[in-house]
This record gives sequence, structure tokens and C-alpha cells, in this order.
Amino acid sequence: MNPRRALGLVFDGERLTVLDQRRLPTEERWLPAETPEAMREHIHCLAVRGAPLIGVAAALSLGHYARGGPRPEAFRAAAARLRSARPTAVNLMHAVDRMLRAFGDGDTEAAGREAEAIFDEDVALCEAMARHGAALLGDGDGVLTHCNSGALATAGVGTALGVVRRAWEDGKRLHVYVDETRPLLQGARLTAWELRRLGIPYTLQTDGMAALLLRAGRVKRVLVGADRVARNGDFANKVGTYGLAVQCAHHGVPFHPVAPWSTVDLAVPSGEHIPIEDRAPDEVRGASGAFGTVRWAPEDAAVFNPSFDVTPASLVTSLVLDRGVYSREALLAGVLGTLGG
Amino acid sequence: MNPRRALGLVFDGERLTVLDQRRLPTEERWLPAETPEAMREHIHCLAVRGAPLIGVAAALSLGHYARGGPRPEAFRAAAARLRSARPTAVNLMHAVDRMLRAFGDGDTEAAGREAEAIFDEDVALCEAMARHGAALLGDGDGVLTHCNSGALATAGVGTALGVVRRAWEDGKRLHVYVDETRPLLQGARLTAWELRRLGIPYTLQTDGMAALLLRAGRVKRVLVGADRVARNGDFANKVGTYGLAVQCAHHGVPFHPVAPWSTVDLAVPSGEHIPIEDRAPDEVRGASGAFGTVRWAPEDAAVFNPSFDVTPASLVTSLVLDRGVYSREALLAGVLGTLGG
Repeated sequence: MNPRRALGLVFDGERLTVLDQRRLPTEERWLPAETPEAMREHIHCLAVRGAPLIGVAAALSLGHYARGGPRPEAFRAAAARLRSARPTAVNLMHAVDRMLRAFGDGDTEAAGREAEAIFDEDVALCEAMARHGAALLGDGDGVLTHCNSGALATAGVGTALGVVRRAWEDGKRLHVYVDETRPLLQGARLTAWELRRLGIPYTLQTDGMAALLLRAGRVKRVLVGADRVARNGDFANKVGTYGLAVQCAHHGVPFHPVAPWSTVDLAVPSGEHIPIEDRAPDEVRGASGAFGTVRWAPEDAAVFNPSFDVTPASLVTSLVLDRGVYSREALLAGVLGTLGG
Repeated sequence: MNPRRALGLVFDGERLTVLDQRRLPTEERWLPAETPEAMREHIHCLAVRGAPLIGVAAALSLGHYARGGPRPEAFRAAAARLRSARPTAVNLMHAVDRMLRAFGDGDTEAAGREAEAIFDEDVALCEAMARHGAALLGDGDGVLTHCNSGALATAGVGTALGVVRRAWEDGKRLHVYVDETRPLLQGARLTAWELRRLGIPYTLQTDGMAALLLRAGRVKRVLVGADRVARNGDFANKVGTYGLAVQCAHHGVPFHPVAPWSTVDLAVPSGEHIPIEDRAPDEVRGASGAFGTVRWAPEDAAVFNPSFDVTPASLVTSLVLDRGVYSREALLAGVLGTLGG
């Protein structure tokens, strides 16, 4: 397996390390991920997050593990553990299944090549999405986004934020409105950090303020990532996305999920079949990160904390895939099923 | 001036003190408010908050000040300073103007009586709102609320949360879904604290999760307070309220602001004329309270931080006033203007 380098993940030819995204932007700490079990823990605890990246990370982890020549049953057990690290993003399941097929009964070289391919494909998928999506953006546009869908979430330039980056690099002046994205603050911590690095102007707001920006006409389009897209175009993404889609419909602002083909799950007919991960109550009772751990709610407060929500295709203006841009009408007519594997 | 006692404000016959709401629920710290200037600072920094309570607090502060026999020009200057402590809630302006009229050229006794009257009227207004509003709630209902509109926000049982309390005390089983209400977390800190004291079951969620609860049918009605109601029924309330009203319209969930007559400003024809306070960027870059001060966003992040937003009457199912319940149709037909002073 040859070296690969992403913003949040590096394989230098010997060691596999990941950027601890829980600690950004306060601290840039790299963690070793020498075993599939270590990578599983990094994914489970969100040190590594973003649907495309967790698929790539799982693949590189298994590719790295294969180099040691594990017994097939040990490799399969490690793969099964990784596959269950988080339930919603299908990229993880896709990537692990590809690695299992490549390794077969012990083909170390094939596993390494497959891991490289999964990484390289993700970079290419990001490029293709960025190219298709950037055509939607005009000079001077305000764009609003939720959570983090940038380079930190992928092996490449990102999904929704990759679109913004490409349009910006094409010379379009843009302003990005960033939902802070409670409870884990991926917008305030990660998207703000990425935009600052890129020099793209942005404004941070709380999630409840987005509706005001839409009403005021400051937002031309809303772009978000996706963790799993069902066959009918419904999709799961970070909790808060559904409410944002409703706001877009009310205010007549175009709403676009941006996702690679690896996020599409044709086996899932519609959104209600996507499994949604519930997370710990303390995430909502306060906040935790390299900035510290604080709790502001009563310690015994009952909490509702789904990690994701599902947005129906009926609220989607168009879905930006690496393969092209698909309108709501096309999604509702079943276009994804016709695109095949 | 005789003793008066509210959940967040006590005049014991000699000393005027306020509960520091910034430090709840971590700590119950009482602050002296011996001068109008001290009270102005408490209101400005949100130690004392809630549209009705800041009006009552200003009145008691001026009533207390009047006992010392200040010169009329000093009294008027103190009143003017208090009046400008926060720009959106009209209760503050109403209360200060009443105190100025009562004190006139130095009538200490009249000022004391007026302060008592303003306090007692607020208690009675809360009772009347609670009675009218409770009739809207049925046994087993889920109710969602934003920010804090309970006893902490008034001299009495509260506005929207007072309605919940009355219905609960009437024997209706209720479950309250509490928006945490970023950035200042009045829901997570104050509403949760009040509901816990009252023994009313509640669940805390981030603001972006409310849409999911509405879609799931877990919320029968949404009740919120108001900081200023315009003549046409548009109203300002804590930022995030407007987006919640849009969600209610989309999901067919009835949406009710609950406010005392002292919150209505007939001089303001519609919502776009209500002044909206912008607050400091650091409120959005992190969080601060007795639990500590943390910053999770880049320290130079540009921020959008209006303290309030305006919801148009067209999104209101009915407005619960102390005088009765007024439907959207009645509001749009101008009923508030006909109710007079």
C-alpha cells in the first residue's frame, strides 16, 4: 500500500494517523491508528467523521492490517467490527465489503490496492461533485451550509463544501453562512476552520438563526452533505438538515444535498428505512472538546439526541452527485435506481 | 413600598435583590439591586431577563429609589437610563413611563404604590393568561417551547410556561419538549430548571431537532412568549421563534404566542418596526455561564447574533393574551387596535 494523504488522514507508507476532529479548531492533534480496532474506536468516538472519510479510513485501516498477513478469519472479524462502528453512513459498509472481497482468503496485495483505489476514487468523486455543483453557484452568491462537508469529511476537497471551494477557486465571490450545528458543533469548529484556511468569507450563526437569513434574502442556495441516500432520493444527514430543508421550501431557497455515489444505498427504498444512531444525553446537556467540558442543563435532564435526520426527496431541489445533478422530479421518478451500481 | 416576592426578584421591605439568571441552574446566586443603575446593569447583562420581569424589575427599582426622596431630575435621569437597558421588550418602556407619571415632581408614596401595582398586575396578567391558555391543552398532550417564559420571566407563574403549569396543576398529564435555545441556552438552563422544580416531565433537545419532533407527531402545540407584539399581531421573541413558527405551519402544528397586554405596543404597526438588539459575537463563538466560559469557534469568526426575531401574525394560530385568545383571523383583521389601552 502506497502513501496517501488527506486533510484528516495520512498514511505515510508505514504509519496510519488521523487528525482528531473532536479537538479542532483548538488543537491539531494526530492520533495513531495502527490497528482496525484503534480505527474503529476513532470512528465510533468521532475523532474521524464524515461519511466518505469513515469509509476511506476503514479501507486504509484494513489495507494496513492486511500487510501483516493476518489469518482470513481474523481479517473478517476485524472488518465486521469496523463495519459496525457507526450505523447510518453506508460508505463505511460499502468500503468494508470491498475490502473483504479484495482480501478474500488472504490476498494482502489485493487488499492494499483496493484501499488505495477507495481513497483515490473518493478524491475523484469529490472533484466530480465539485465540478457539477459549482455550476449552480453564481458570482456574489450567499450559500448556507450545515455541519461539515469539507475536506475534513472526505479524502478529497469535500462534498457540499468542496462545491463552494471549487466555485471560489473559479473566481466567484461567495459568502458562506455556517450553521454551528448543535450538539457537536461541526459547523462552528470544523467548517469555520476550513473556510478560514481557504480564505473564503463566512459568517457563523446558531442553527435557529438560519431561517432569518433565508427570509432576509441573504442566501441564494443551501448545500449540505449526506450520510446515506435512499433509492427514492430521501437522505439522512446531520440532525438539523431536515428542518433546514423545510425552511428552504417555505422561503423558496433552492436546497441541494451533495454526495458521492458511495453514499447511495439502492438497497434502501426510502428514508424511513435508514437506521438512525442515537447518541449520549451528555452531548445535549452541554458541550465537550479540546476547549473543555461543560454542562449547562440539569444533570438528570431527559434528552432527545438523534445524530441524523431524514429529509424527503420532495424537499430537495436537486441532488448533486459525482455523476451529475438530478432534479427532484428525476429523483421522484426513480432515476437513482436506473443509474445502477 | 411593601414586600413583593417573585421567583427571580425579591423586595423584602428594605432590600431589593435579583436572582442571577446567567448562573442558573449551576448556582442560585442573589445579587443586590439597590440602585436603578445597578438594576440597569443587571437587565443589560441578562442577570434579569424576560420581557415582563424586566418591566417589573425596573418599576421596583424606581419605587425603591423614590423612597430616598431623589430630586425629580435625578429620578428622571435614572428612569431614562433604565428605559434604554434593552431595546426590544416594550414592557420595560411601559413600566418606566408609568413610574415617571406616578413620581411626577416628587411623589414618593405614589411611586411606591405604582411599583406595587405593576408587580401585582403582572401576577394577575399571568394568572389570566394561564387560565385562557390552559383551556387549549388536553390530557396527554406534548407541548414544545422555546427559550424561557416561566416564573423566572415574570412576577407571576409565567406566560407560555405558566399556561403549561396551570394545565398540569389542573390534572392534565403533559410532556414538555424544551428547545435548548442557543446561544444563551435559556431553555436548557432555565426552562429545564423550572420544569424540574415543578415536577413536570420534559425532554431537552437542540433547536435543530424540534422539526423532527413536530414531524413525528409528538407535539400537539407550540407555546412561546413574546417580547413585543405589534398592532397587527406580528411579534418579536427570542431568536429561533420565527423558524419554529415556520416549522409549525409546515407540519400543521398549532402555534401560540402567550403574552400579557403590557407586551403589546399599539404604536408599532407591524413587526418590521420592532427594534432588534444585536448582541456580542462571543455569545455565538462559544458559551458562558456559571458552568464556565468556553469558545469552540475560531476567535476571529464573523458572527450573526440578533437577540430576537419577528414572527408574522400569518404564522400564528392564536395569540393568548390575559384578555382572551385571539385567532390569526382576528389579529389580521386588527383586533388588537380595538382592544384599546
